Amino acid sequence: MTNLYITVLSKSYIYFFNILFSICSQIVMIIKCISTFPAVIYATSPSSPLMHSPPLSPQLLNCLTPEENTGCQHGLYFQDGERRVDYILTYHIKKPSSSRSNRQSSRFTDNAFTRSLRRGTARLGRTPPPQPRGDPEVASQDHSMDYHVDDKRLHREEFEGNLRDMGMELEKDEDTKTPGVGFVKIHAPWHVLCREAEFMKLKMPTKKVYEMKQSTGVGAKINTLVNKVTEPLYPNVEDNRTQNVKHLSYMFSREKQHLFDLSDRDSFFDSKTRASIVSVTVSSRSSMTCGPCNACYVLTFCCSVFQLLYEEWASYSVFYKYQPIGLVRKYFGEKIGLYFAWLGLYTQMLIPASLVGVIVFLYGCATVDDNIPSMEICHPKNNITMCPLCDRACSYWKLKEACGTARASHLFDNPATVFFSIFMALWAAMFMEHWKRRQMRLNYEWDLTGFEEEEVSDHPRAEYELRVMQKSLKKEHKTQKIGVTFAIVFGVILYRISTKTALHMSNNPTTRSNVRLTVKTTAAIINLVVILILDEVYGAVARWLTVLEVPKTDKSFEERLIFKTFILKFVNAFTPIIYIAFFRGRLVGRPGSYLYVFESYRMEECAHGGCLMELCIQLSITMLGKQLIQNNLFEIDQYFSKKLQRYETDHFLEPFAGLTPEYMEMIIQFGFVTLFVASFPLAPLFALLNNIIEIRLDAKKFVAELRRPVAARAKDIGIWYNLLRAVAKVAVIINAFVISFTSDFIPRLVYQYMYSPDGSMHDFVNHTLSYFNVSNFQDGKEPMDPQHQVEMCRYKDYREPPWSNTPYVISKEFWAVLAARLAFVIVFQNVVMLMSDIVDWLIPDIPKDISLQIHKEKILMVELFMKEEQGKIQFIDSMIPCGGKEKRNNHAPIARSRSIPHTHSHTHANNF
Amino acid sequence: MTNLYITVLSKSYIYFFNILFSICSQIVMIIKCISTFPAVIYATSPSSPLMHSPPLSPQLLNCLTPEENTGCQHGLYFQDGERRVDYILTYHIKKPSSSRSNRQSSRFTDNAFTRSLRRGTARLGRTPPPQPRGDPEVASQDHSMDYHVDDKRLHREEFEGNLRDMGMELEKDEDTKTPGVGFVKIHAPWHVLCREAEFMKLKMPTKKVYEMKQSTGVGAKINTLVNKVTEPLYPNVEDNRTQNVKHLSYMFSREKQHLFDLSDRDSFFDSKTRASIVSVTVSSRSSMTCGPCNACYVLTFCCSVFQLLYEEWASYSVFYKYQPIGLVRKYFGEKIGLYFAWLGLYTQMLIPASLVGVIVFLYGCATVDDNIPSMEICHPKNNITMCPLCDRACSYWKLKEACGTARASHLFDNPATVFFSIFMALWAAMFMEHWKRRQMRLNYEWDLTGFEEEEVSDHPRAEYELRVMQKSLKKEHKTQKIGVTFAIVFGVILYRISTKTALHMSNNPTTRSNVRLTVKTTAAIINLVVILILDEVYGAVARWLTVLEVPKTDKSFEERLIFKTFILKFVNAFTPIIYIAFFRGRLVGRPGSYLYVFESYRMEECAHGGCLMELCIQLSITMLGKQLIQNNLFEIDQYFSKKLQRYETDHFLEPFAGLTPEYMEMIIQFGFVTLFVASFPLAPLFALLNNIIEIRLDAKKFVAELRRPVAARAKDIGIWYNLLRAVAKVAVIINAFVISFTSDFIPRLVYQYMYSPDGSMHDFVNHTLSYFNVSNFQDGKEPMDPQHQVEMCRYKDYREPPWSNTPYVISKEFWAVLAARLAFVIVFQNVVMLMSDIVDWLIPDIPKDISLQIHKEKILMVELFMKEEQGKIQFIDSMIPCGGKEKRNNHAPIARSRSIPHTHSHTHANNF
Repeated sequence: MTNLYITVLSKSYIYFFNILFSICSQIVMIIKCISTFPAVIYATSPSSPLMHSPPLSPQLLNCLTPEENTGCQHGLYFQDGERRVDYILTYHIKKPSSSRSNRQSSRFTDNAFTRSLRRGTARLGRTPPPQPRGDPEVASQDHSMDYHVDDKRLHREEFEGNLRDMGMELEKDEDTKTPGVGFVKIHAPWHVLCREAEFMKLKMPTKKVYEMKQSTGVGAKINTLVNKVTEPLYPNVEDNRTQNVKHLSYMFSREKQHLFDLSDRDSFFDSKTRASIVSVTVSSRSSMTCGPCNACYVLTFCCSVFQLLYEEWASYSVFYKYQPIGLVRKYFGEKIGLYFAWLGLYTQMLIPASLVGVIVFLYGCATVDDNIPSMEICHPKNNITMCPLCDRACSYWKLKEACGTARASHLFDNPATVFFSIFMALWAAMFMEHWKRRQMRLNYEWDLTGFEEEEVSDHPRAEYELRVMQKSLKKEHKTQKIGVTFAIVFGVILYRISTKTALHMSNNPTTRSNVRLTVKTTAAIINLVVILILDEVYGAVARWLTVLEVPKTDKSFEERLIFKTFILKFVNAFTPIIYIAFFRGRLVGRPGSYLYVFESYRMEECAHGGCLMELCIQLSITMLGKQLIQNNLFEIDQYFSKKLQRYETDHFLEPFAGLTPEYMEMIIQFGFVTLFVASFPLAPLFALLNNIIEIRLDAKKFVAELRRPVAARAKDIGIWYNLLRAVAKVAVIINAFVISFTSDFIPRLVYQYMYSPDGSMHDFVNHTLSYFNVSNFQDGKEPMDPQHQVEMCRYKDYREPPWSNTPYVISKEFWAVLAARLAFVIVFQNVVMLMSDIVDWLIPDIPKDISLQIHKEKILMVELFMKEEQGKIQFIDSMIPCGGKEKRNNHAPIARSRSIPHTHSHTHANNF
Repeated sequence: MTNLYITVLSKSYIYFFNILFSICSQIVMIIKCISTFPAVIYATSPSSPLMHSPPLSPQLLNCLTPEENTGCQHGLYFQDGERRVDYILTYHIKKPSSSRSNRQSSRFTDNAFTRSLRRGTARLGRTPPPQPRGDPEVASQDHSMDYHVDDKRLHREEFEGNLRDMGMELEKDEDTKTPGVGFVKIHAPWHVLCREAEFMKLKMPTKKVYEMKQSTGVGAKINTLVNKVTEPLYPNVEDNRTQNVKHLSYMFSREKQHLFDLSDRDSFFDSKTRASIVSVTVSSRSSMTCGPCNACYVLTFCCSVFQLLYEEWASYSVFYKYQPIGLVRKYFGEKIGLYFAWLGLYTQMLIPASLVGVIVFLYGCATVDDNIPSMEICHPKNNITMCPLCDRACSYWKLKEACGTARASHLFDNPATVFFSIFMALWAAMFMEHWKRRQMRLNYEWDLTGFEEEEVSDHPRAEYELRVMQKSLKKEHKTQKIGVTFAIVFGVILYRISTKTALHMSNNPTTRSNVRLTVKTTAAIINLVVILILDEVYGAVARWLTVLEVPKTDKSFEERLIFKTFILKFVNAFTPIIYIAFFRGRLVGRPGSYLYVFESYRMEECAHGGCLMELCIQLSITMLGKQLIQNNLFEIDQYFSKKLQRYETDHFLEPFAGLTPEYMEMIIQFGFVTLFVASFPLAPLFALLNNIIEIRLDAKKFVAELRRPVAARAKDIGIWYNLLRAVAKVAVIINAFVISFTSDFIPRLVYQYMYSPDGSMHDFVNHTLSYFNVSNFQDGKEPMDPQHQVEMCRYKDYREPPWSNTPYVISKEFWAVLAARLAFVIVFQNVVMLMSDIVDWLIPDIPKDISLQIHKEKILMVELFMKEEQGKIQFIDSMIPCGGKEKRNNHAPIARSRSIPHTHSHTHANNF
């Protein structure tokens, strides 16, 4: 037992050290970059706005203290102090030496690396280099661009005229404290909001209120009890308490205005809705989202919602609480709300998975002493001499030496892991189903039922191609980066080759073993680094491929890009793991005739305990490393200046670059959690710990670090759901193969039921070892330094013994075990797939209470209109001659006296 | 070659004879039933309306000749000759001895057997037994039911009052020529139609017409050419020619009346729409579809549409033409239209599948002489003596005797079948995708885009349970039938057991072989009969199980019922086939120690050529037999009497019982086409031939034999699509197993690449045969009548020879072949599944031209409303104070002067 623990501990120490080392080297690299890169950046962008934004005092969102609230409100209104600023457009104004700075600022879009660099610079308190204001070269450049700038200005003014024609009210502010940037503040007056809301078919709450059905009797009591117990888990937000009443919602239309409570026109449409109305209008006038302007954004709105979000959501101190999703949606819109709801559910679902994972791991720890094969290996009387693992350089060794590894690999290679991988496959199916239900519930709560997804950017071809051009131009600076990463990748490859060569060149055994050790310990970390670098490369490759394809619409562009990026990143992240799981240690040949590729490069072999242990190590390093490095856990400091207008402060925040990177990271993680669970039962636990931080980190980013994005409506998470399904499907197959081929589960079973004399595992180790007669070594292949003198040595394989008619040929046992392994794969795959389908089929996609509520709402709506119709019917009759020219029955008022009892829910209710 | 053909021909003659025999016996059975069953039926239903419907002159739909058109129109209008009858309700009126007959008539719903019986009776010209009009027992029964009848009448009158309150106009006709049946004719006046159409959100064509985009240049020319070539394939119907213009459709509303062309009010809502409007109103007033009445239906409407349908659709003479789907939908509604569109596409898709299937079959025929294994078996010098196939009774035999079977099985067991089953898996995926696209196209053409499926019968619990009760009561008479079928099944089992026993009891070898032959030839047919009978039983079992479940809504009731019925019928149809494919001939033991189950019952073995041949025979018999018997191909005669009113004639037609049986039959057929294609490449051809007849048969049934059903709207084919997908999935796995385990494909491959000395198939037969030393026979197991005296005999298995250390133990070759087989299953399943997914992903669900058209329509609609808005805006402003009380900008008219250029398709277009 102690032997085992020492081995495990020493191994894990080594790897923990390695992780630390990798992080340190990463930090060193970042610091080095910080001290060299900014110069490069400044060379091309002499006046990056962030760099010279005045006093960088680390002062946190001062608008949140009530005293300064009015200060924060500064810039939220037009000059008259009445009209609210709903939307901001920025453009660069023709001032020498600043016209380019702005273009530069727009280039800082979704480049995470430069972003972190800038953050780093700010953190280190470095003062930016002085701006070359009077640089004659820049001035002359500007001069030559005058015509271009004028043209742009004309274009912009025409655009602004268009907006005014549509009823928008605009106010310009060119004389800000931010040089080179002009701001256009847009206010949408009431009648424009009404009109556009009608056109956008926005569902708004009506005056009609109804009571939600409450469970009664025992159910209610249990409910109250549960609510009390889980009380501390809910955020201190009114919003997501169980409310008993709900406003009926109906598509806003001016003709049905009386249905809505319009007493407070300022708050009927909230800031999110106002902004999205203006945004839709702006983008409808142009093929670009922001028209001819550089950027457009919504103001960070210092209301109670924002403050609540900051306190009850974007804070590590509330990590154990549910998220106030309703509030998130209220402030950021449905699309971002859905992301966080999804992330929340995923994290929540990870709790039972981690629990079971930990139990499985503990089971492995507890049963390690009952494991007969490892006991036999470690037995003091065990005197099996093993054949050398390589030609010449290696020597004979005693099986006892593999005792530690054998015991350790039992932790991940026991029947419980088979159970666990079935459990995780079903868990994935459950997660999918739960998400469908949660989504449906949110759709209901957010009044999205019946809303058809808009293909906002369904622009026809010609115009669209222009946009793709612009897009690809925008991304051109990425090629630079690609060059750098390629250099790094090449370096890594060179390093590996040279170490390998060193290993083969040297004749000194000590040097050899040293080199070997170094190679082994650094291999996993190098893998990780290569993965991280290739991630960036593949992202660029995917974009390039998608641009080549020229898909017809923006939406399909995005989906194709996501799909390709995902495939490449996924393959990238899992290739080394799949190599270890399924290829390493296969086809190594046998002692005396080991297989060589390209004459000198031998196929790698795993340690005696099987490759499962190594797989586990590689998995944990990749997963933990990725998480640690990609989630740089540094606090985000925000720099606000009281002297700036609100819209200027927001201008210096980074633009919102979409949810793709967030989803991508999570789905790769989902892959780690499901794909190789059979070999790494602690993966869900690590994912859980990471996600608890991730939620708050993302929240902080959205609340304080990014410009507030325009609220987008969405019913679902789109292509990500399909990718999740695909990962879950692949996971079933991969787990089947890991259990049957990487672990020793099947050989043990076969031995127990086919070969064992007494049905026990005794003598299993002996059964898996074949014999080799040392006299069969070819010249030059026998060990140079044989520490043991033996006649027969053993090796792990199923081959005929030297004394059979066909020595060293693959034996019958091999084929029997292979057949059993393949049969297991078929059975496992189909049974698990069937079970997943059954789970899918058993859990209804729409929660029962929600479908009842939707139904009830429809009935109430019909009732409302019925009442109305009775009053209005004569009026309509007199105005429109529908019922007026009937041959019969035309003068009688259409008495639509349908009483709709509570138990009745006839078709008309559904038709409404 | 001749040898082969003789074998195949003789085999096929035998089986063809068997099929004929089965059909004959089936017919005999039906005739027997006819002469015995009616008595049973009459005992419970003394006055079945069909039986006494007056002069049964076989006169075909006389309304079709224009002279008699007016005669046909008799009864289509109210007494005033003006108001059209939109809907009919029937009830039984209180007259002695007839009150029950009607109830009985409503029992004749979806019972195919009694239906065919009745049809059979009619065909045979048998006069029905005299009705027991004056039966005192019946009269007394009626007397006791007087109170109940009065209660019912009151209930009905209240219901009629309700309908009148809602604006419906009713006319009663109790004095018809049909005794005991009262008719309520319903007419919906214009204002009611308008109101209900608005509530049902019916999309109606507007006045606005637009040109469909026509391809230009080379595309147009090719198009014209293709159209000319395929000209004769199109039915002579205006409807589905490529029309250049299309009416924009918009949800009908009285407020937007000016959009629609209401010049001809009589034809604005067609008869189908009028009827469905009335039907929805009727069912909304009651929990039952027909209110308190017995039956409700739409009149068969003798218009040009009906005539066209009869000539261009429901006729065998147009079997090679496309169906006039638009017309079908116009007359029967979307749900039935979709069924026929689906059936049409399926049949069309079967054409390439049958072609490839025939080619694969011909390839098998052509290469039979190049097949080395069968050549070796048939070689004159081949002198291998085989071991007896059973203990004692059987004798040694020469391998040469298996020559015919070996050659025949090559037809179905060659590399082409592997290709074919991959092809069919992809074909199934393609079919699915094509259907999705076709569905989308139809949705567009039928103006269903944006229509949300109504859960018409989403009735809450209490009320619903009553309906289930009534439903289950209605079906109670089924239990009777079940009793009969159980008796039959039991009889069959007894027969099989007794023949088996006879076989084992007799010591006379001639008797034995005779019995064996009889059992073999009758086995397949008995299987078929059992399948047909169990089909009925399982239908009842599924219904019973579903009633036990008490699902919440009607829709879920139907879906669960369909699902269960499908599972049971599917298992029933394929159990014997799966038995032959995967279990027969496995685990038979070896000569000298054959395995016995229950001491005396030996596991069945296949002939030497493998079980594939037998599988093929069983498949073809089951499939062809099912098709021949279930589609009784007799012409349907229709009995119309000029003296009856239209609604009375329709009353004697059978009610429409839903599309479930039609879909079910087709999906089981789809199973035959896809599940075992590897062993029966001609299945698609047989399915194709069957479906060409099936389409016209179903069409005839719908046009002339059934009451015209109420048009139901549907966007898709619902649960059937999921079942198709499931079948296609299962097909992949089954085919993988058939290829690897039932055929000799894998053993041949393994021999060729692992054991063959020269890489050819020479000596393969010898390799698959193991040796048996006849001295190893246990006492009493050696052949009684050894025709050949040998020392060693051979048997087909991979076992160690008698001279090895472990004689008769499963050999290494066995395990190697098994591993190869299992590996093939894994590879095949995953590759084919992946390819299907790729097909699914590559083919977009919405055809490009349709998505463009939908988009264009939306833009046109917005344009239309924009124009309108400009004219109406002041009017609305003055009426509703939305834009009127603004602080600013309120007096200027809201000039919504968005010009929408052709290349522009901004968001608002989508929002409409």
